[in-house]
Parts: sequence; C-alpha cells; structure tokens
Amino acid sequence: MKSRRTDLKKFLKTTTLLLMCSIFLAACGNLQDSTLSSGGGDSSKSTVQTTSSSDSSSYDVLLSNGKYKTSPISGLTAADNSNQFNSRSFESGLMKLSKKQFSTNSYVFQEGQVLSASTVNKWLARKSKKNPTGLNPASNGSTAPTKRTPMYLQQLLEEDYLQKQDGKYKLAGISIGVAMNKIDYYQKKQYGATYKTTITEAEQKEQGQRIAKEIVQRLRKEDKVGNIPIVVGLYSVAPEDTLVGGNYFQYSFSKSGELGSFKDLEYKSQMLPVVNGDTAISSSDSDAFSNFKTHIQDYFPNLSGVTAQAHYDGTDLKSLDVTINTQFDGLAQITSFTQFVQQSATKYLPSGADLDINIQTVDEQQAVVTRTNGKFYSHVYDAD
Amino acid sequence: MKSRRTDLKKFLKTTTLLLMCSIFLAACGNLQDSTLSSGGGDSSKSTVQTTSSSDSSSYDVLLSNGKYKTSPISGLTAADNSNQFNSRSFESGLMKLSKKQFSTNSYVFQEGQVLSASTVNKWLARKSKKNPTGLNPASNGSTAPTKRTPMYLQQLLEEDYLQKQDGKYKLAGISIGVAMNKIDYYQKKQYGATYKTTITEAEQKEQGQRIAKEIVQRLRKEDKVGNIPIVVGLYSVAPEDTLVGGNYFQYSFSKSGELGSFKDLEYKSQMLPVVNGDTAISSSDSDAFSNFKTHIQDYFPNLSGVTAQAHYDGTDLKSLDVTINTQFDGLAQITSFTQFVQQSATKYLPSGADLDINIQTVDEQQAVVTRTNGKFYSHVYDAD
Repeated sequence: MKSRRTDLKKFLKTTTLLLMCSIFLAACGNLQDSTLSSGGGDSSKSTVQTTSSSDSSSYDVLLSNGKYKTSPISGLTAADNSNQFNSRSFESGLMKLSKKQFSTNSYVFQEGQVLSASTVNKWLARKSKKNPTGLNPASNGSTAPTKRTPMYLQQLLEEDYLQKQDGKYKLAGISIGVAMNKIDYYQKKQYGATYKTTITEAEQKEQGQRIAKEIVQRLRKEDKVGNIPIVVGLYSVAPEDTLVGGNYFQYSFSKSGELGSFKDLEYKSQMLPVVNGDTAISSSDSDAFSNFKTHIQDYFPNLSGVTAQAHYDGTDLKSLDVTINTQFDGLAQITSFTQFVQQSATKYLPSGADLDINIQTVDEQQAVVTRTNGKFYSHVYDAD
Repeated sequence: MKSRRTDLKKFLKTTTLLLMCSIFLAACGNLQDSTLSSGGGDSSKSTVQTTSSSDSSSYDVLLSNGKYKTSPISGLTAADNSNQFNSRSFESGLMKLSKKQFSTNSYVFQEGQVLSASTVNKWLARKSKKNPTGLNPASNGSTAPTKRTPMYLQQLLEEDYLQKQDGKYKLAGISIGVAMNKIDYYQKKQYGATYKTTITEAEQKEQGQRIAKEIVQRLRKEDKVGNIPIVVGLYSVAPEDTLVGGNYFQYSFSKSGELGSFKDLEYKSQMLPVVNGDTAISSSDSDAFSNFKTHIQDYFPNLSGVTAQAHYDGTDLKSLDVTINTQFDGLAQITSFTQFVQQSATKYLPSGADLDINIQTVDEQQAVVTRTNGKFYSHVYDAD
C-alpha cells in the first residue's frame, strides 16, 4: 500500500477540481440553502470547491480526483447473514458515534481507505498457522452447536475523517465498526444444512473488546494512521429472523495510543406491532402505533400491511420507520391517503420521534411521508 | 342505482365523523400547516370535520361515511395496453382541466360515483344489436389492420366535484376523461398474435368529440346529474412501446346543456435522452439533460441508467421526472450522491421546471430529490 499522505499530495497537485458534497446522516433534510463555494487558499493552485449543506450536523464528503471513493472492505463478511437491515444501521451508527469525537464543522468524511480487502479478509477468518492475523479464534474441532468455537467477528467497517492542513486534506481521524455475531450460522459440510451457535452478551463484549484492542494496535503501525484519534464501535448483528437491524452496544476512543475504557450504549430496535410474543420496549409507544394503524385501516380498508421499526436510545423513542402496503395505486386515492397518513401520524404517533413512512404497493414505491425535527414533508411519486 | 342526493342525506344523518383530506395535485408539497378543524353549522348534528391543506391549489377530498370511496369504473378498459405510464397522467390531467371550472376553494373532490361498472363496460364495447349503447363503432367485418374499424375509445374516467349547500355536500360538477387510442391493439383469434391499427389525429378528434357529446347527453338524463356543469377532456393514449404516458389533446365544457366548442391543448411528453431517432421537442432542454447526465456520471461512474420524462405545455418545459439507476447502495455513497444530484440539477437542469428525481437500485428505491416551485427537497430511505 502506498502512503496516504503521498496519495493526498499527488492528488492535490494533479486534480483540477476537488468537490465535497454534504452528507447528512439525519436522512432527510431540506437542502435548499446548499451553496457551491470556492475553497481557495491552496498553494498548489488546484481549484478547490466545497459544497456546504445548511445542516451543520452532517459531514461534508471528499471526492478524490472528482470521484466518490468507496472503501475496499465494504461488504466483506466472515459468514452469511441474510438480514438486510443490518448494513445501513452498521454504517449510520458508526457515523453517529464518530460525531462525538470528530466535529462535522472541522472534519470531512471519506469511506475508509486504509484497510485493504486482502488484509480484512485475513482478519475476518479464523486464526490458524496459515492465517496468523485471523481475529476469529481457531476452531476447537467440534461442529456441535453448543461445543464448537463460534465465529464472533462478522464484519469490519472503516470510516475516515480528514482535516484541511496547509490547504491539503489529511487523514485526521478513523472510526472502526466491529460487527459481532449474536448468532453464528454455519454448515457442517459445504451446501449442507445450516446450524447455529448462540453467543451470549457477555461473550460478545469480551470478544469484541479483545478484537477492537487488537485492531487499534495494528492500525497504529500503519504509516498513514500513526497517532491520530481512533473511534471503535462494537455492533451486535441482528439474527436473520428478526425484522429489524442490529445496534451498536459499546464504543471506545483512543486519542493516540491504546483504546480507553468501553462505554455502554443503550440503542435498541423493535418491530411494531410486537411479534413472537416479545414484550414492548415501551407499551405506550406500542399502543400509540396500534391506534395509528387502526385509524388508517378504518378509513382506508384496503391496506395489506402496516408495520414499523422503532429505534430507541434507552427508553427514548428516537425514530419510527413505518412501512404501509396498499392494495390500491390510483393517483387520487394515493394522494388522499398520503395526506390522511400525515394527519393520523400527527395525531397518534409519539411527537418526539422522527418519522419515515413509506407507502408502497407490491410493485413499487407510491409515496413517502417524513417528519424530521418536527417538520413534515410528503411526496407522491409520478403524480404529474 | 340509488339517487346520489338520497345517499348524501342518509350519510349526513348517520355519520358521526366526516373527514375530508386534502388532495394536492402538485404531487409534492410541504403540508406542515395542515389543520384539522371542525366544520360546524350542520343542522343534522353530525360531527363534520375537514382538513385543509396549506396549498390552496389543491382539492379537499370527501370521505363518505369515513371511508375513501373509489370509482366503480376505475381501471375498466376496452382493449389491452401495457403502457403503465398512461393511468396516472389520465387521472392527474383531468383534475388539472377541472380546476379551470371547479375552484379548489369552493369544491371538494370525490372519485366518480355516477357511472357504474356495468354501464361503462357496455359503453366501451362496440355498438351492436345486443349492445345499442356501445360507443365504439360496429365492426365492418374486416380483420385487416388498415381496413377494419378500430376501437377508438379505450377508457373512461369520472371525477366528481361537490359543494356544501345547507350543510350538506351535493354533486355540483362532473369531469369526464375520454381516453382515445392512437394505436388499437387486437387479436384476430383468441390468444393469437397481436395486430395493430393506427388511428390518425384527425380521427381521434372526430371520434372523441362524437363520443364526448354522446356521453354528456346521456349524463344529463341521470337524476343526480341534471343540469350541473360538466367538463370533458379528450386524452390520447400513448402506444405500448413509448416510455412516456399520453396527454389530453382537447377539452370542452357544458354549463348546463350541450357541450360547447372543443379547445386544443398543447401538452406533450418526451423521453430524454431522445430515442428512436426522434427530434427533441426542445434541443436546449435535451442538451441540458445530457450535460446533467454526463456530469453525474463523471463523478459517480457506477450508474446504470439516467433517463427522464419531459412534460411540455407547448414549448414550455413544465416538469422533468428523472430516474437514476445506481449499482451502489451503501448509505454513505447514496447520501453523498443524493446531495451531488441536487447540486447538479441546480446547475444544469432548466430552472423553471419542477423536478422529480428518483434514485434507485434494481431492488429498491434509495433516495428522492424533488424541486417544486423552485424549492428543493431530498430524502434518503432507511438512513437511520
């Protein structure tokens, strides 16, 4: 691997256009105030442009050589897990943790460029003579669900945070997401039946902390990292049969050397209406959602499903992602229904939570209603 | 069929909740100012509630007995046409024409309740001894594409406009959409090959006007219609292989008796980039779109398609519905791309047109960017 600083120098000398575009984690913002402004002050005479969002709580994004750069380790996993809800919360949760250390005002974001795919593939595998850097423990020979050594580490995510120094963007912070299995799915033979080993919360924490510390030690040896601050988040991967994604359960910070102590996080997600005999995290939120659901089904009987993912921090409902499946798709009816959903949400759903309500038929998205920081927005697709 | 007035009286006596919700044809509006207010003043003591949108250019919608009522003739067609883009513009276009006669301030909207499915099924069929009310002409016996008598009339749409009189909602205006084929698709024998007869613009107009006049005469004989104003729009159905929907090409108005003269409409739709060797309706709009497309493809190379439906009134570009297919779906990249699309749209796309930009992967909707009356909004799905 080439040195990151060399890369950055070269890129700043040769590029004629450096664009940053704003990333807004809040998922939903009115960006009418966006401006395209000249960055200036760059001794290398390259044209530097930045776009700044009106939303100061979100990062600007670096486009290297005028291109968005993806992380080479994106999507690499240790084992299969078909739960589609994990990947987005794994990404967005790490960015949320990063904001505690890397201010959106002074850092710009880029997908991780330090860790390579070949390195991470070795790290995700079991430790063995042939693979000494493996972060999952060596097999103990057993294939019995309760006796074997499971694969604890499922996935890694790197996010880079850069700062402008002397007119050039330099890596100034790294965040690492460590996705830990709650259930490890495995086959005893190739293409065979799938078995599972359940991992306790205590094991998740212990193994996660061991892996996080090891990763930070390894990163510190990389030239391009050196002594810059590193954030590590431990993420619990949601099992395949849950209808919500996982959550970060601990995080830690290293200013320059080793990782400090791990702090607990209280993020939880739950499907509404509550399924499988689960207990509601908040019965008042669960009741509120039931009332909302009943109300819209009374007025528009042809709905085939109204469900939600509720996201909590402790017992505070932070956001509600609602999916409504309709059996109708006529323009007048969809438009009228969209308006009705907004009214009903205002009346019945907890007022403090952000809302993301998707109205769809089996075939396609029909409309969306959102509430962000108390402000509603609605949109019907293809209405003109 | 029961009398509409009787229906309305009964409903006003028995209902305890009458809700209207606002329909906004503009497809996209910020409804944060919606209010739920008591209508009052109703001698029958039923609780009347209305919701009024902040957007005065859109209709409130009547919910009869607390339910949204669909039109019984919705979706009935004379022949097959697989072009999915027709149905929404057939609906929204008629509402746009209706606004010329029925002010959004004094009328509320309801899907058509006068025409029944059995009536319209007869009207859509060919005229014959067994079907004297058929509005498509009798067959001349030929099955040759250029010699046979085509099916001119493809579909009918009814929209009702009600006014409050003495505390009760009464039918006070009707709009009828008449969808006329440009190409009539037919089979010579059941499950056989599909043939087509092309219909000229002159024939479309002549036949459409004949059918419209006949429908108005028939409606005038209905008790619940009597002498209320009727709007009729003639719509040209887009052929199956075009990637845009059809448009209304003429309309007429009857205050109480017969229809008046027909007025020409200049609505046109075109796919961008222009396909099949077509000439661009506006070469400057076509160039602007190409520049937009090139710009975003330069910065985000992994796009698998960037297309648009351009909607014109004469030579004025009214709106642009853009679809962008991406090969990536990571949260950071989608969010960054969404922001970049908005910037590029501001810079390259014609400033007067409303925009509806959908960003999607093969599997699902990822984000949306809209501009309505100059105001941008963007939303990334499932970002929290």
